[in-house]
Amino acid sequence: MTTLLGHNYIGGGRSANGTLQLQSLDATTGDALPGTFFQATEAEVDAAASAAAAAYPIYRNLSAEKRATFLNAIADEIDALGDDFVATVCRETALPAGRIQGERGRTSGQMRLFAKVLRRGDFYGARIDQVLPDRQPLPRPDLRQYRIALGPVAVFGASNFPLAFSTAGGDTASALAAGCPVVFKAHSGHMATAEWVADAVIRAAERTGMPAGVFNMIYGGGVGEWLVKHPAIQAVGFTGSLKGGNTLSQMAATRPQPIPVFAEMSSINPVIILPQALKLRGERIAAELSASVTLGCGQFCTNPGLIIGLGSAQFSAFLEQFGAIMHEQPAQTMLNAGALVSYSHGLGLLHEHPGLTHLAGKPQQGVQAWPQVFKADVSLLLNGDELLQEEVFGPTTIVVETRDQAQLIAALHGLRGQLTATVIGEPEELLEYRWLTELLQEKVGRILLNGYPTGVEVCEAMVHGGPYPATSDPRGTSVGTLAIDRFLRPVCFQNYPDALLPEALQNANPLNIQRLVNGVSTREALG
Amino acid sequence: MTTLLGHNYIGGGRSANGTLQLQSLDATTGDALPGTFFQATEAEVDAAASAAAAAYPIYRNLSAEKRATFLNAIADEIDALGDDFVATVCRETALPAGRIQGERGRTSGQMRLFAKVLRRGDFYGARIDQVLPDRQPLPRPDLRQYRIALGPVAVFGASNFPLAFSTAGGDTASALAAGCPVVFKAHSGHMATAEWVADAVIRAAERTGMPAGVFNMIYGGGVGEWLVKHPAIQAVGFTGSLKGGNTLSQMAATRPQPIPVFAEMSSINPVIILPQALKLRGERIAAELSASVTLGCGQFCTNPGLIIGLGSAQFSAFLEQFGAIMHEQPAQTMLNAGALVSYSHGLGLLHEHPGLTHLAGKPQQGVQAWPQVFKADVSLLLNGDELLQEEVFGPTTIVVETRDQAQLIAALHGLRGQLTATVIGEPEELLEYRWLTELLQEKVGRILLNGYPTGVEVCEAMVHGGPYPATSDPRGTSVGTLAIDRFLRPVCFQNYPDALLPEALQNANPLNIQRLVNGVSTREALG
Repeated sequence: MTTLLGHNYIGGGRSANGTLQLQSLDATTGDALPGTFFQATEAEVDAAASAAAAAYPIYRNLSAEKRATFLNAIADEIDALGDDFVATVCRETALPAGRIQGERGRTSGQMRLFAKVLRRGDFYGARIDQVLPDRQPLPRPDLRQYRIALGPVAVFGASNFPLAFSTAGGDTASALAAGCPVVFKAHSGHMATAEWVADAVIRAAERTGMPAGVFNMIYGGGVGEWLVKHPAIQAVGFTGSLKGGNTLSQMAATRPQPIPVFAEMSSINPVIILPQALKLRGERIAAELSASVTLGCGQFCTNPGLIIGLGSAQFSAFLEQFGAIMHEQPAQTMLNAGALVSYSHGLGLLHEHPGLTHLAGKPQQGVQAWPQVFKADVSLLLNGDELLQEEVFGPTTIVVETRDQAQLIAALHGLRGQLTATVIGEPEELLEYRWLTELLQEKVGRILLNGYPTGVEVCEAMVHGGPYPATSDPRGTSVGTLAIDRFLRPVCFQNYPDALLPEALQNANPLNIQRLVNGVSTREALG
Repeated sequence: MTTLLGHNYIGGGRSANGTLQLQSLDATTGDALPGTFFQATEAEVDAAASAAAAAYPIYRNLSAEKRATFLNAIADEIDALGDDFVATVCRETALPAGRIQGERGRTSGQMRLFAKVLRRGDFYGARIDQVLPDRQPLPRPDLRQYRIALGPVAVFGASNFPLAFSTAGGDTASALAAGCPVVFKAHSGHMATAEWVADAVIRAAERTGMPAGVFNMIYGGGVGEWLVKHPAIQAVGFTGSLKGGNTLSQMAATRPQPIPVFAEMSSINPVIILPQALKLRGERIAAELSASVTLGCGQFCTNPGLIIGLGSAQFSAFLEQFGAIMHEQPAQTMLNAGALVSYSHGLGLLHEHPGLTHLAGKPQQGVQAWPQVFKADVSLLLNGDELLQEEVFGPTTIVVETRDQAQLIAALHGLRGQLTATVIGEPEELLEYRWLTELLQEKVGRILLNGYPTGVEVCEAMVHGGPYPATSDPRGTSVGTLAIDRFLRPVCFQNYPDALLPEALQNANPLNIQRLVNGVSTREALG
């Protein structure tokens, strides 16, 4: 078993200069776990960012192949984390062992997927415009472009995915793939988990000869501000609350040198159920939707928090079935005591609001979260009521009934940006409602037909992003291989001799990558 | 000749509800040109943004082919603007007719280049991960991704390129190509020029059946704030001063819904001259560099404002030659009276600074700008002196002499982000100084070897961007075809029937575009 030191990870070493020591709590019992964690001092945060800055020119210049080897080594180390590790994660998060084992595979899998991206080489975005010496009135010089790492990246992990969106999660994987050293701020909800994973990353870095400082990790509350404001940090990845993401974005925008922030924040993930589907399979939809709302105690970014239908006898029947199923769902333990407090508070606001009716769910009490269903008057969406738009993190959802298509359109226009939208409908009615999927494109990052949003596949085509407030920048995704784009920027080389060009742009195309040469996509070498 | 109405362009119509009327001035004489321009009211700015928002769902859904036809029609209309037009631009900007004729061709040329990009289809970023029904433990759904237009874009043009970076310039062209309707804020330095070009765009839009509101233009000072803060606006393109760009960026970041800003702002474009090149061709370099510094009265974003060399007898001789040539360069008329005031003010600060010495140039006086050369102590770069880092817009440059390589490295580390850096050296010494080009990659968007930065080719591989303060976002370029990326965002479609997918993602690949299918780049149709 890993011995937990609780020291910060700085430039390949460990450091515990602070006096404030933190404890990690068992999410189920509230008991302190063994060991303490040293909150980073301002000097330690500076040292971590400086170590990342020192690693940057070395690490970004390693071949993509070498970075791929590093990512694969991290994946192997994570896969090798055994039952002791899983038990620790379960204690810190109250998530079941099966889920953690699955998430371990997802986390190593996404490292391996980014290694594939590095070997494929399309992330370079290589473009070559060859010299045109005889062009009139002026010759065109030789111009070549590829993308390089932005610089050291600060990553803030999420509470709800202690592995896949945390220490070695998607933001870390995509930043490391891009060639950016990382300073990771450990989530205070799973500091022991973070230490196990950081150890795995460091072992992989040492084994594959990476520069010290390629990965750093700091503990503590409030230390993130020092990190985001540090001049060496060139971008921020964040998964968490709207308030937290907004705060970091403002810090980043008001630095002497503003930097980009990719914050994945708040989404209520509307599910729209069309009439024919309700008629033919309303009961099944009620069961499936209930499972999606309560999955993992509703603690998913893509949890369906809003269910929209057209008023009808079928929809009323569906609501009864859905409410009945939800009412019978058991309470579950949340990720930590703070999450339960927030959930109870959020439910309180929904109960108090005059535009909402409680449809189903046992009274919220005790140490676990009880699933709930509310119904909101459509006017709340039409008038952009804030309460309906804010994610209540936990196993609850709100139903909205619209009178007709015109009101459905108006209600959807009232929605803010979302990670996902789901439409459940029969094949013919989906074609009939084509306008609906067109409209939803303008609101979300991903549209699902006849599925449920709570599965986020790690693949090439995934978008886990969307317009604000789903994220702080709709042009990115934090899941899937396109996530690497967030940490790259283009550089152009004019009139370079072949020997000075990076391999990705050399005439012979030694990396055998797809390039845009004089406007044509090709793998061919240049004469 | 176009009749100048001076009314704002809103949703395909013209509007002049304001009471404030503005006049455009002859840049050489200061005389008012005929006609007046109506400053937009807040309601007119709202109407313009709303017209763009109304056009958005229609325009973004037009086929790429139709948008390409529109861009080509704009190009034709711009090419057809004749001698009257050129004379107007010359009066408003004091730029010579030959330059304006060239810029007209560059402006229509970049519209045609974006039309090619639309037809090639790589801007879609199409990615397909096909369903894996038998995958364990869970099947993978079918997932497909492409990129859609962000939404209405506000564009602020530059004074120094009244055509190529203005009304129908690079930002407008790339936003329209992406499928984003545009609201253009006419530059007060060339409002008549803006009207000629806006008329050309509107004629093209009408001729090709574009939705009303695809292009709008407003006049006035201070109206930009209403525009950037308008909820319909989803991104901003800007070319201008650091102060202006920072102000817009802050406005955009503090909106209820923050939006991205691409501001191209301030760059001093260092030129580093290596010893062997100085020895072999110092005199030629002095002449060429002088031509680059004074080209277009030094009013280029890529004007070389900093010349760095290693102290030596050759470098001293070079400085004498360079100073002598610069001293003999004639004064030129600037773009407008304000530019001359700024130039004189900037020179004043350089004269006053104790760390700077005036090397060459006739006293700044009269109504034209006189070329100047200053020499700065290297300590100003080492200590990050603000004055040395700020662009002085006009025909002046600052020389810095470094003692040795170590001091050169330290000085370059002191540089802020730049659009360009140039290295002049002999083939062998460029290889010897490989570390220099590696270091410069971290500072700039484009590195030129043995050239001068004042030509910015419009092509696939160009990067006219770079780290702050060169731009507000180092991941973009405002020249070249990659500029379209700034105005696109990815959307993912899960479990879609073929008939509901956009053409770019349909199985048969009807657009015959390059796509990433199951991790492989291909044009093949799917079975």
